[in-house]
Amino acid sequence: MQVVHTKVELRAALKEAHTTGKTVGLVPTMGYLHAGHASLIRRARRENDVVVVSVFVNPTQFGPNEDLSAYPRDAEKDSALMRAEGVDLAFFPPVEELYPPGFTTYVQVEGPMTATLCGRTRPGHFRGVATIVSKLFHLALPDRAYFGQKDAQQLAVIEQMTRDLDLGIQIVGCPIVREADGLAMSSRNVYLTETQRAQAPGIARALFEAREMIRDGRRDAAAVVEHVKKTIAAIDSAAIDYVSMVDPRTLGDLETLSGEVLIAVAVKLGRTRLIDNIRVEV
Amino acid sequence: MQVVHTKVELRAALKEAHTTGKTVGLVPTMGYLHAGHASLIRRARRENDVVVVSVFVNPTQFGPNEDLSAYPRDAEKDSALMRAEGVDLAFFPPVEELYPPGFTTYVQVEGPMTATLCGRTRPGHFRGVATIVSKLFHLALPDRAYFGQKDAQQLAVIEQMTRDLDLGIQIVGCPIVREADGLAMSSRNVYLTETQRAQAPGIARALFEAREMIRDGRRDAAAVVEHVKKTIAAIDSAAIDYVSMVDPRTLGDLETLSGEVLIAVAVKLGRTRLIDNIRVEV
Repeated sequence: MQVVHTKVELRAALKEAHTTGKTVGLVPTMGYLHAGHASLIRRARRENDVVVVSVFVNPTQFGPNEDLSAYPRDAEKDSALMRAEGVDLAFFPPVEELYPPGFTTYVQVEGPMTATLCGRTRPGHFRGVATIVSKLFHLALPDRAYFGQKDAQQLAVIEQMTRDLDLGIQIVGCPIVREADGLAMSSRNVYLTETQRAQAPGIARALFEAREMIRDGRRDAAAVVEHVKKTIAAIDSAAIDYVSMVDPRTLGDLETLSGEVLIAVAVKLGRTRLIDNIRVEV
Repeated sequence: MQVVHTKVELRAALKEAHTTGKTVGLVPTMGYLHAGHASLIRRARRENDVVVVSVFVNPTQFGPNEDLSAYPRDAEKDSALMRAEGVDLAFFPPVEELYPPGFTTYVQVEGPMTATLCGRTRPGHFRGVATIVSKLFHLALPDRAYFGQKDAQQLAVIEQMTRDLDLGIQIVGCPIVREADGLAMSSRNVYLTETQRAQAPGIARALFEAREMIRDGRRDAAAVVEHVKKTIAAIDSAAIDYVSMVDPRTLGDLETLSGEVLIAVAVKLGRTRLIDNIRVEV
């Protein structure tokens, strides 16, 4: 595995692949890799000649009161996981490599898609996401890019940006990977106290119950959402940010259910904000 | 010359060039081509294996009270000029090809660079420019792209965007081409009445006089700007929007002159808004 830190090195390392028609798969990450990331890398490995993984805790997607400085980092463990998964090229840029002095250009998916769900409490978050992802796309020029469905809104925003800006890249959304007890894998799970960690799987259980309700024939979005809210509210120390039933592509609210629906939640356990979701084919 | 109207056709037409390592030069235009455009095409022809010219009157860069519907169009004359200049590929997309229903992603160069000069009276203009140019870059994946120095602010904004978003494209700014009497070539000159057309070269003359003042040793920006304002104000029917002495890269105002300076003006002659500028090496 080749490890690079600069844009010039990254481009040089990919030049041969691009001029010889090899396919390139990109997995953009913020590091502190877990089994969810590993599943993205494995899929990229299966589908492409060259696999690139970027590790960059992107400052422009964190709000002023968010956890940028606390965000967990472990480059050595990340490198070991990448090597084990057969990654060809690891990109670990320092912040000033991607945001040099005078940086002032942003990509913004405007409208309801970024104003709803996490956009309500994290203004500017998806502007930061769209900007860094477009930069990574320009640098690596991948054929395919891999993102987890756990960040469902991020995935929808990146798909919208990729269509709108004609990026010509196939966006591959990969299923959520969960711990044995149901908790969705997240680098932020490390923030949880022992008690919170024991309570956290209740969020996933509420989503699984919602899926059962729909499979059992419930078609009233409000009733299903209400059930999820009640179930999560019963968890000690849980404070619900949102529970929403939306179209997974547009993120528009659904009243009655048909096609594929997404139930998305954001919950604070103490000071740790967790998101999770489930897709159900109605 | 191959003429295409869709993104799929454009990408297909360029595929061979990209996979065989041929260099691609892109000249994005709004059509109604004149000798200024021809100079861009000629330079692109000299420097690249494949020359692509796009003709698209981009609605997102026009304000609600601007001249979108009146903007002059002549696809046949444009095609003839392109053929004469040896263009390989002409791209004439309809509006819905680049802005399909649901389009909602924009690229914005934020900060003083887009707030000054034309940005003061044309809010959103450079957001529209940055968005369409980034789309055309993604579609054509050129090695070099060619823009006229007449739109000096547009050129600075595109250079900033290209750096910030790591587009990896060489932006080539080409000198202003003028009529025999000094008037800068512009598709909008066709709007001028006979009287206005006779008055218009006074704008360029004011800029030439400013250059002479600087060459004669004047280093006080305010005095030079004042002279340009007085000279243009003396033209019947001229209403000055701005006269500014700025750094051509950052567009920041200059007080004393050193290095390369840009004197930029926007003037309304009747209902027609003309821009012009001159670069002087101090």
